[in-house]
Amino acid sequence: MRHSQTLIPTLKEVPADAEIASHKLLVRAGYIRQTAAGVYSFLPLGNRVLKHVEEIIREEMDRVGAVEMLMPALQPADLWKQSGRWYNFGAELMRVNDRHERQFALGATHEEVITKLIGDEVKSYKRLPLTVYQIQSKFRDEKRPRFGLLRGREFTMKDAYSFHQSTESLDDMYDKMFRAYSNIFRRCGLDFRAVIADSGAMGGKDTHEFMVLSEIGEDTIAYSDHSSFAANIEMAPVNNEYLQPNEEAKPLELIDTPGRYTMHDVAQYLDQPLANGMKSLLFKVDEEFVLVLSRGDHDINEVKLKNAYQATNVEMATEAEINEVLGANAGSVGPVHIDQIDVIADHAVRSIMNGYCGANQDDKHFINVCPDRDFKVNAYYDLRFIQEGDPSPDGQGTIQFARGIEVGHVFKLGNIYADKIGAGFLNEQGKQETMTMGCYGIGVSRTLAAIVEQFHDEDGIVWPKAIAPYDLHLLTMNPKHQDQFELSESLYQQLQQKRFSVLYDDRKERPGVKFADSDLIGLPVRLTVGKRAQEGYVECKVRATGEQFDIHISELDEKLTALLESSH
Amino acid sequence: MRHSQTLIPTLKEVPADAEIASHKLLVRAGYIRQTAAGVYSFLPLGNRVLKHVEEIIREEMDRVGAVEMLMPALQPADLWKQSGRWYNFGAELMRVNDRHERQFALGATHEEVITKLIGDEVKSYKRLPLTVYQIQSKFRDEKRPRFGLLRGREFTMKDAYSFHQSTESLDDMYDKMFRAYSNIFRRCGLDFRAVIADSGAMGGKDTHEFMVLSEIGEDTIAYSDHSSFAANIEMAPVNNEYLQPNEEAKPLELIDTPGRYTMHDVAQYLDQPLANGMKSLLFKVDEEFVLVLSRGDHDINEVKLKNAYQATNVEMATEAEINEVLGANAGSVGPVHIDQIDVIADHAVRSIMNGYCGANQDDKHFINVCPDRDFKVNAYYDLRFIQEGDPSPDGQGTIQFARGIEVGHVFKLGNIYADKIGAGFLNEQGKQETMTMGCYGIGVSRTLAAIVEQFHDEDGIVWPKAIAPYDLHLLTMNPKHQDQFELSESLYQQLQQKRFSVLYDDRKERPGVKFADSDLIGLPVRLTVGKRAQEGYVECKVRATGEQFDIHISELDEKLTALLESSH
Repeated sequence: MRHSQTLIPTLKEVPADAEIASHKLLVRAGYIRQTAAGVYSFLPLGNRVLKHVEEIIREEMDRVGAVEMLMPALQPADLWKQSGRWYNFGAELMRVNDRHERQFALGATHEEVITKLIGDEVKSYKRLPLTVYQIQSKFRDEKRPRFGLLRGREFTMKDAYSFHQSTESLDDMYDKMFRAYSNIFRRCGLDFRAVIADSGAMGGKDTHEFMVLSEIGEDTIAYSDHSSFAANIEMAPVNNEYLQPNEEAKPLELIDTPGRYTMHDVAQYLDQPLANGMKSLLFKVDEEFVLVLSRGDHDINEVKLKNAYQATNVEMATEAEINEVLGANAGSVGPVHIDQIDVIADHAVRSIMNGYCGANQDDKHFINVCPDRDFKVNAYYDLRFIQEGDPSPDGQGTIQFARGIEVGHVFKLGNIYADKIGAGFLNEQGKQETMTMGCYGIGVSRTLAAIVEQFHDEDGIVWPKAIAPYDLHLLTMNPKHQDQFELSESLYQQLQQKRFSVLYDDRKERPGVKFADSDLIGLPVRLTVGKRAQEGYVECKVRATGEQFDIHISELDEKLTALLESSH
Repeated sequence: MRHSQTLIPTLKEVPADAEIASHKLLVRAGYIRQTAAGVYSFLPLGNRVLKHVEEIIREEMDRVGAVEMLMPALQPADLWKQSGRWYNFGAELMRVNDRHERQFALGATHEEVITKLIGDEVKSYKRLPLTVYQIQSKFRDEKRPRFGLLRGREFTMKDAYSFHQSTESLDDMYDKMFRAYSNIFRRCGLDFRAVIADSGAMGGKDTHEFMVLSEIGEDTIAYSDHSSFAANIEMAPVNNEYLQPNEEAKPLELIDTPGRYTMHDVAQYLDQPLANGMKSLLFKVDEEFVLVLSRGDHDINEVKLKNAYQATNVEMATEAEINEVLGANAGSVGPVHIDQIDVIADHAVRSIMNGYCGANQDDKHFINVCPDRDFKVNAYYDLRFIQEGDPSPDGQGTIQFARGIEVGHVFKLGNIYADKIGAGFLNEQGKQETMTMGCYGIGVSRTLAAIVEQFHDEDGIVWPKAIAPYDLHLLTMNPKHQDQFELSESLYQQLQQKRFSVLYDDRKERPGVKFADSDLIGLPVRLTVGKRAQEGYVECKVRATGEQFDIHISELDEKLTALLESSH
C-alpha cells in the first residue's frame, strides 16, 4: 500500500483525553479516531490489525469445530424479558424503539438470540453437541468510557456458544475452548494468564478469564510463582493451614482503649502484632445481620462471603445499624457476648490465642481473647482476600500479584438460558431434556489495545509480526533522486510478489518525518532506500531490537524471511 | 465441513410469510432465520455466502485503490443535524439515547461520519484524492419489511466514499467505481444493468443504479434492445423527434362530450386516436399552479416535471383546486383561453395537428385544436415517461422494459456534505477549498437475495461457483456400509487437500432426504458414494445442468476442476 493512497494521519501531540499507552499510540499513529465518547472509527491501519486478530481467532475456532455465523444487533426486547436481563442488565444495555414503538435491545451479548434460535432449530440429541461463533459489533453503554479501545461503548467481539446433551460434553468443549483461547493469545504474542474468575451477572459457574498482564489492568490477578495457578483476586481460594500458637490461654480481660478505633491504632496501643487482632465487621447478608471476623492483617472478600451464604446481596452495615445492633461504634465492636446474630469467621481466626477485639462498648477492647472459649463462632469459612506471599492454593510456590486486562472469558452456563428461553431436545430415549450451554467471548478490539500495551516503546508501537498491519515499511529518503525512486518502486513491486505485505512511504516528506512516523506505526522491519541505492544497497532496521544494517537487494528476500520468522 | 457438526436446518414447508423465491429458499435451505421483522440471523451457510460476496467486493475495491476501514453504527445526532438529515430522513432513521440522554443515530449510511473524519484529518491537496470503504451493518427502519433479505431493517452493506480536489478527479474515480461494480456483479454471476437513476434524498447528481433483472424487482428499467442504454424509468430521457403531421389546420370548434371524462372515453366518442388528444393535468409546483400537457397516449413523469422547474415539491392539484383555478372538473380541463397560470407541454404535444382537449366547461371539449395557435405554451420540455417501443434515447435500437432489483448505487455527491459538515483543504495556491465527494454503495445481503432470484429452480438454489458456500456436496448413500463409509471419509480428506471446499453429508438419513437437501442447498457439484464404492466409482451430478454420471475416483480431480471452472 502506498502511503499517498491511504489515510494514516499521524500526530505529534498526545491526544488530551488519552491516559494510557495504547490509547495514545493508536491515535497518534493513525490507527483509530474517536467518533463519540467510547465509539471509534478504525482507520485503514486499525482495520488491518483488527482483521489480523480476527483471522487468528477464526482459525482457532474452526480448529475446535466451532462454526461461524452472524447474528443481528437488533434484538427483540421480549427475549431479554424472558431471560430477565431486560430488567437487571441496567443502563449498560442500550435500548431502541422502532417506528411502531416495539422495543429492541442493541446486542450487548447474544445468549438470548442464540438460545432461541438453537431451541427452535435443534430438536434431537442427534444434532448435539453444536458450537457456533460470530465476530461482530457489540454495544454496551459504559458509564465512564475511557482508555480508548479498552473500555468502549461499541466494540468488536467474538462470541461463541456451545450446546450440549450433558455436562461431560460441555466440559469437553470448555477444555477445547480453553486451549483455543490459549493458542489465540499466544499467537497474538501476548503474556497472559488464564485465571479463575467470578461468573458475575452472566449466570453459570466454572469460568476462567484470560488476562493480559499489564500495569494499567483494572483487575488484580493472584498467581503462583511456581505453578500455573492464577485467579482473579476476587476468586482466589486461600490455603487455610495456619501455625497453631504455642502458648497458654490467659484469662479474658476488658481494658480501656481511648480513641483507638482502627486495627492499626489498637495494635500499636497494645504493642501487639496486627495478626493477633480480630477484625469484626457487621454485614447485611440478604437482610440478615452477620458479624464477620478476620485476622487484623487480613481483608474480608465480599464475593466469598456472598458465596458462603449463597446470598444474592451482601453489603456493609451503616454506622447507625452497627450502633443499633451491637451498641457501640464501628471501631469498638467484637464477637464476645453476642448471641442475637450469627458470628462467622475466616479460618485464620481459629488459630489466634490470647488475641484482642472490640468489646461492644465505645473505647473498650478485650484482650486475651480465645475463639470458641470467649465467644461462639457459628461457622468458619474461607472469607479473606489472598495476599502476596501466601502459599499458593495448589501447594506449589507462593502467591504474587499482577494487574491484568481481561481479553477473554470462558463460561459454563449450564442450563440457565436454555431453561428460561426454552431450548430442549429429545434424548436417546425420546425424553425431553434441557440443553446445557457454554459461552466463550473475546474482546477483539480490546485485545488490540492489550497488544499495544505490551508491545510499545517510547517511539511508538512495536507490533508482533502476526498482528502488524504490514510486514515491511519501505521508505525512500529522497524520492526526487532518480536512483532512489526507481529502486523503491521496483522493490515495492518485487517484495509484494514475494508475498511480503508492504507499506510504501512514497510521500515527499523529510527523512526525519518518515523515520519518526515509521517508528510510531511500528511495522516489524523498515527498509530505507537512500544514498547507496545505486550500488543496490538498502538499510534494514528491525523495529523490536533496533538492529540496523545495510544489505544488498540480492540478499533481501532470504534475510527478510528469516527476520520475520524470528520475530514473535 | 461435516453436516453433523454444523447447523443446516432445512425445511420441507415454505415459510408462511415468504412471498418470493429467495426468501423461501434461503429459509428452507437453512441459510437464514428471522430474528425479528426484517432482522435476520445468518446461519453457517448464509454466513459463508455472505463472506464470498464480501471477498469479491474487497478485491475489486482494492483494485481501484479504495482503502478499507471500519466506522461505528453509533453516530452522534449532532452530525446528522449538521447535514439536516436528522430531520428529513424520517422514521427510517433509527435513533437511540445513551444513559446521559445524548442522542445517536444508528448508522443508516455514513456520509456524515466520514465527511467529519476526513474533514478533520485531511487538510491539504497533497492527500487527495482519497477513497475509503467499509463492509458493515446498516440500520433502516423500513415501514414494511418484507421479501426476506431484499428489504430488511438491519443489513450488510459496502459503502465507499471518495474525496477530491476537483470534479475531474471525482469523474475519474466514478468511472473506476462504475467498472468495479460491473466486475463485482459479473463475478457474482448476475444478469444486471447499470441504469441512469434519480439521486433522490441523498443529494447530488450524476448517479447510476446497478439493477439485477428480476420479475420481482420493485423498479422498472427502460433499456435499449441494441445498445447498453438503460435507465430507471423515472429518469429515462425521451428521444423527442416526432413526425410532423401532414394535414391542414382546421378551425377550432367547441363540442359536447356528455359524461366523457377520461382520454379514453373522449377518444372513443370522437373516433380519434388517443395520440391526437391533449391530456391536461393541473399540478402544484412549489405552491404555483401549472397546467401540464402531454399526448393522450403518454404519461407525465413527475420527476421530470420537478427537474424542469428545479422545484423541491410537485403534487397533483385536488379536485377542489382544479375547479377553483380552471372552473371545471378534472375530466374537462384544457389549455385554451388560459392565461392566469403557466401552461407547459411535453415535446410530443407540439406535433399534434387538429387535436382535442377539455374546454374548461364540464362536459365540453374543443376539437381541431392546434398548439401555439389556439393556446400559448410557456415552454416545451421532456416531461413524459418513456414507453416500450420508443426509440432509444441514444439513437440505437428501441426501448424495452424490465423489472430490476437495485443492488448497487454510485453517486456524484459534489460538495453538499463537505459544505454542511465542513470538509475543506488548502489547494496548491494555499487557498481554502471545499472537497468534492462521491459515494458508492452495495447492498451485500440484498445482492445475495438477488443471486438466488436469478439462480434457482423448482428443487432449490443453484449457486454460481464463486458464491456457493462450498464447491462440492459429498453424500454417502449408506454410512453403515463399510466400503461407502471409508471411501467417503477418505474422499472428504483428499478433496480438501486438493483445495476443494466440501460439505460432507455424514448424517444417518435416508438417501432421499440427502438428495432433496442437496438440491435445496444448491452446491455446484454433488458426489454420491453408493453401491459402486468398492470399485472406486462415485456418482457425480452437476446441479446447474442436471448432468449425472459415474466416475472413477482416479479421474475425479481433473473432472471436478474442469466442471468448477466451466460453471459460471
